[in-house]
Amino acid sequence: MTSQRQVVLASRPEGTAGVECFALREAPIPELAEGEVLTRNLFLSVDPYMRGRMGQAVGYAGAFELERPIPARVVAQVASSRAPGFAEGDFVWGFLAWEEATRVHASRLRKVDPALGPLSHAISVRGMPGLTAEVGLIEIGRPRPGDTVFVSAATGAVGQVVGQLARLAGCRVVGSAGSDAKVEHALGALGYHEAFNYRSEPATEALARCCPDGIDIVFDNVGGETLDAALGRLNTFARVPVCGQISQYSRAPGEAPYGLVNAGRLLATRSTMTGFVIYDHMHLFDDFVVRMARLLRDDRLTYFEDVTEGLESAPEAFVGMMAGDNLGKRLVRVAGPVS
Amino acid sequence: MTSQRQVVLASRPEGTAGVECFALREAPIPELAEGEVLTRNLFLSVDPYMRGRMGQAVGYAGAFELERPIPARVVAQVASSRAPGFAEGDFVWGFLAWEEATRVHASRLRKVDPALGPLSHAISVRGMPGLTAEVGLIEIGRPRPGDTVFVSAATGAVGQVVGQLARLAGCRVVGSAGSDAKVEHALGALGYHEAFNYRSEPATEALARCCPDGIDIVFDNVGGETLDAALGRLNTFARVPVCGQISQYSRAPGEAPYGLVNAGRLLATRSTMTGFVIYDHMHLFDDFVVRMARLLRDDRLTYFEDVTEGLESAPEAFVGMMAGDNLGKRLVRVAGPVS
Repeated sequence: MTSQRQVVLASRPEGTAGVECFALREAPIPELAEGEVLTRNLFLSVDPYMRGRMGQAVGYAGAFELERPIPARVVAQVASSRAPGFAEGDFVWGFLAWEEATRVHASRLRKVDPALGPLSHAISVRGMPGLTAEVGLIEIGRPRPGDTVFVSAATGAVGQVVGQLARLAGCRVVGSAGSDAKVEHALGALGYHEAFNYRSEPATEALARCCPDGIDIVFDNVGGETLDAALGRLNTFARVPVCGQISQYSRAPGEAPYGLVNAGRLLATRSTMTGFVIYDHMHLFDDFVVRMARLLRDDRLTYFEDVTEGLESAPEAFVGMMAGDNLGKRLVRVAGPVS
Repeated sequence: MTSQRQVVLASRPEGTAGVECFALREAPIPELAEGEVLTRNLFLSVDPYMRGRMGQAVGYAGAFELERPIPARVVAQVASSRAPGFAEGDFVWGFLAWEEATRVHASRLRKVDPALGPLSHAISVRGMPGLTAEVGLIEIGRPRPGDTVFVSAATGAVGQVVGQLARLAGCRVVGSAGSDAKVEHALGALGYHEAFNYRSEPATEALARCCPDGIDIVFDNVGGETLDAALGRLNTFARVPVCGQISQYSRAPGEAPYGLVNAGRLLATRSTMTGFVIYDHMHLFDDFVVRMARLLRDDRLTYFEDVTEGLESAPEAFVGMMAGDNLGKRLVRVAGPVS
């Protein structure tokens, strides 16, 4: 094999991103220098935050480069290695890219133990989305048995873990999602006590119905109108970890962000709203992986992935996810493992 | 003396409160039961938060009752006592009311040591406004030398202490106020490094000019457009203690609160916005009084009061303060001490 395929950023979106923002390219397989590894990529991550980095105006991370493969978390197998401690066939994950093979310095890879469970979990429930859920809910939200926890994007990559962890922590858990099928999934497999479809019921009404005793923790994945409605029902000393704001990522150029009219409730209720980014909490990662693997092994927590097939499916997988067509964590399967 | 005068709530305001919401009444001097004290009131506090409690829709405290004297912090002298430990002539402060004399259980009073400084300070710089400044800036804001601190209502009851404490803590301090005279006062007597008049310069432009390196702490006394502009300039890991939102207190019925479009910056910068109410921090009070008295005695901090004369001036003092006509903490002097 001397060449491989990559999905690159072809153009920057204005407003909603379409598949035309991406292009499939052939690229040579690079030579390795000392200390480097060539990966054979198995699963690629597809995440809402990428929308921000496709544009020029960016938040906590830099803009993606045009004509370069889309940076992403990847589960891979070592294809060849010039790095001590990394042998052909080892499983790894790291920040690689939407491509079939990546040349990378070994210091940027972490080993994946296949005995812990499915390989894809290294970039989903046992990876950043899972750690994001735990840090936001536990470290920032500080749940107490009896608290009411509201989770937006309740069935998504992060939300489905937040809901289950909150229930395990003794909370009453309420979720919002964008379809009746997702609501059913939240109430069934994910164990939410209440859930509603924000596309068919205004969030203010739904939260009044689902949270008659107010809300102690708002785990915000979406921002905008849903967050605003939740702020309107805060209890005293509530906590609002802000993890993502997908409703605000695809605004047209010049379109103002949604204006939060209920932010004054933070004062009235003496509550705290905290934005967080998981890369500030990586010191918790190694312990988290073991803890989460145990919860999954003991069937105390379950996780749903929505996997599309083939590198070439990545653009559509992304565009569809931004419109909400995924049920669970969206991943792209590029190849199967070789043994 | 068998009767006294009181200022009562005559009607609830809609939108901006006028003096017609108040009325002056005669009332009998009550008899004391065992454990009670009759106070002779010297200074009354006049505060923006009262506007919320004059209406029906209230935040962290209940609505004032119609036809009852306006509850307020008061510095007083004991006129007569049936409580052990409280003797005629003792100085006290407590939550009493806009009236000349109050019958109160002694457990609701705190002694004031006249040796610490001016008596009025017990309800201003050495009282709740001063403690509010310290708790919001130090406990919630966590200033570090080199931080940029932005204080809205920079010359007000709380703001003038925040600005001076922040400077003492090694920060660069920027303030906003509603007149050129206040800006001059902030830059002069209060030692702000920069200040601007939000009525003559849009806050977004002024903050770009005054805070070229961004903002690490926003001490918010006003909410609305000024807060929104400050959120737009947050540095990473910034802190936003929310103490008051005077711009939002006098909305007309049905008028929506200002919508914060820059709240998404909390996520992008991993910042925290925290509403707080000083009554949750009263365990810090006794130590604070000593600390603040020392700063004042050593001329490391100064404090400005704007005192009107006579109980009957209280309604106008309040209405004027809500429009911003005060320079410093507004108080009403009802009587002088007797020895």
